[in-house]
Amino acid sequence: MLYEINEKALKLEAQGKKIIKLNLGDPDLATPDVIIEAAYDSMKRGKTKYSSSYGELPLREKLAKVHGVSSDNVVITPGSKWGVFATMYLLLKGGGNVIIPTPYWTAYDLIAKSLGAETRLLRTELEDDWQIDLGKLEDLIDGNTRMIILNNPNNPTSKVLDDEVLDGVVNVANENGVTILSDEVYGAIAFKKTKSILDYEKNNHVLTTGFSKTFTMTGWRIGYIVAAKELVDRITRLNQITINNVPVFIQEAALKALELQKQLATKIKNEYEERARMASRQLEAAGLEFTEPEAPFYVFPRKRGLDSERFTLELLDKGVAVAPGTAFGDYREHFRISLTAPRQDIKTALDRICEAL
Amino acid sequence: MLYEINEKALKLEAQGKKIIKLNLGDPDLATPDVIIEAAYDSMKRGKTKYSSSYGELPLREKLAKVHGVSSDNVVITPGSKWGVFATMYLLLKGGGNVIIPTPYWTAYDLIAKSLGAETRLLRTELEDDWQIDLGKLEDLIDGNTRMIILNNPNNPTSKVLDDEVLDGVVNVANENGVTILSDEVYGAIAFKKTKSILDYEKNNHVLTTGFSKTFTMTGWRIGYIVAAKELVDRITRLNQITINNVPVFIQEAALKALELQKQLATKIKNEYEERARMASRQLEAAGLEFTEPEAPFYVFPRKRGLDSERFTLELLDKGVAVAPGTAFGDYREHFRISLTAPRQDIKTALDRICEAL
Repeated sequence: MLYEINEKALKLEAQGKKIIKLNLGDPDLATPDVIIEAAYDSMKRGKTKYSSSYGELPLREKLAKVHGVSSDNVVITPGSKWGVFATMYLLLKGGGNVIIPTPYWTAYDLIAKSLGAETRLLRTELEDDWQIDLGKLEDLIDGNTRMIILNNPNNPTSKVLDDEVLDGVVNVANENGVTILSDEVYGAIAFKKTKSILDYEKNNHVLTTGFSKTFTMTGWRIGYIVAAKELVDRITRLNQITINNVPVFIQEAALKALELQKQLATKIKNEYEERARMASRQLEAAGLEFTEPEAPFYVFPRKRGLDSERFTLELLDKGVAVAPGTAFGDYREHFRISLTAPRQDIKTALDRICEAL
Repeated sequence: MLYEINEKALKLEAQGKKIIKLNLGDPDLATPDVIIEAAYDSMKRGKTKYSSSYGELPLREKLAKVHGVSSDNVVITPGSKWGVFATMYLLLKGGGNVIIPTPYWTAYDLIAKSLGAETRLLRTELEDDWQIDLGKLEDLIDGNTRMIILNNPNNPTSKVLDDEVLDGVVNVANENGVTILSDEVYGAIAFKKTKSILDYEKNNHVLTTGFSKTFTMTGWRIGYIVAAKELVDRITRLNQITINNVPVFIQEAALKALELQKQLATKIKNEYEERARMASRQLEAAGLEFTEPEAPFYVFPRKRGLDSERFTLELLDKGVAVAPGTAFGDYREHFRISLTAPRQDIKTALDRICEAL
């Protein structure tokens, strides 16, 4: 229902309606000028040709340095979503099951379904601070389990996994020979230190992430995978028969972004932290239940008895787009608010939300 | 072997070696400035956000007009290759077979293999002017045949299908309820009128094409599919869980290209026609057998007794990259030359090729 809401919101906007769009993880902030200028400069230098399906070496080398790996372990993707799809395509082709903690980002489940893989949902609860129960995880694993997907920090809860819980998940995965796909796209701008899957000793797990959230480059479609060389090579061969390459001028813009990461990302993070604080105060005052965001961009409040699908559609007619909890699993009483609008718009939207509830 | 040659050529170049790269369909001509400026202008107007997985409506409407269809029949893809993959993914998932005339573009076969679909090759011959034998086509079709892939004009032969042969293929497909995927990426700049799959009455066939060849925008990764609305909707749902959208600033640059198509594409076509004439004369003088190109960018000559794989690797060490015939099917005595370098470089490369033979 996430995509349907978005297409409907776009349609209403095309009809001239003003919609405060808090339904996507698409920041209102503009891509920094310096990144745009880098892309333009690159185009003018003729970086408009086919290129390696691994991605450009300077960018891979820079990312390798950031993550403490070799450039052989890095492949550039058109968005982190492509990284998720490509990994799942290669590991789940021909069957097997994948364990996905809920609430989850819709795409994981849709991709698994599209590939014909069995999805095993591992429910987490607001009451448990959205942490994974290791016993439940072990119970779900069997001989056909090929993958566990972590989204850390999580969309929609903006919660970071406790270090000990992550340690436990990695142990369980290692003991059972199961690959973890860790989607850490919100990690670089989390409000608290977030342990990465790459912090563990030599392993066969996979990191997917991207530039979208860290640098407000959502529409540019650039991300990357860090994985064992063998998987990087396989993903590159899949790139060769699908997307071929991310435009080089976009890769060079992303390299410029990385060089200025400290400056650019800190500013972005501070803005989101302020918004999260503001929204939390307002939602708390309205009596909603939720965990405080530990990362951009989402809050995932609950109101007992709410039918969030109906609520979301009605709210759209009042000019506010949010996402129903059912888009993230069996969470009908929840809905997801993306804090991806100027503060004044967020305040207006939250006023309307609280009124509509 | 096509991709291996390319990665090796890129490596040699990175080592400072000068390679005349006639191994890819990647024009040496620069993307016209007006297209680059349109992209830059679009970025500066903030067109850097997530957007519809269908593609931007103004671009879809313009393409609909070009092809005489509705915008509901058009979906924008990151390159025409993605259009081919997405269509094959949706139609061949879960089995079935696909008929591919040879010589073929490597990607069709690799995609089919990746999807676990059975490939049925339909051999065409230089002696038959590379035309499809309808009797052989009918013999290959059975109850599990889901798709016939046409590449018209063809890569690697640069041959256009005769109208009557295309009529026959469409008839056979319609009678058997098989979908034709017609990859017409070289069609807009063919040297002779090329009948399109869209020239046939209301049908369930699929056109894939792109901006790469027509506007020298290879590295930009933008193409599109024209198909029945139902398939367009399914491809859009696949886009949603994979690439999400083509960057809007790239779509706006492509729209600008279309507006100037007559001016831009004519110039490009004339240059390639001149190169094809020049190369044909030189290859003919060297006693090679081939059909004269009817479209950019390739010539696919044969020399009896040649082992083109060995020949290609040896030639790479002499600073010329071409593609072995085996990359396009069972054509060991052929090799493919891409006329995608300045005329002087092509001449030098052809001299070295003729010498090496």
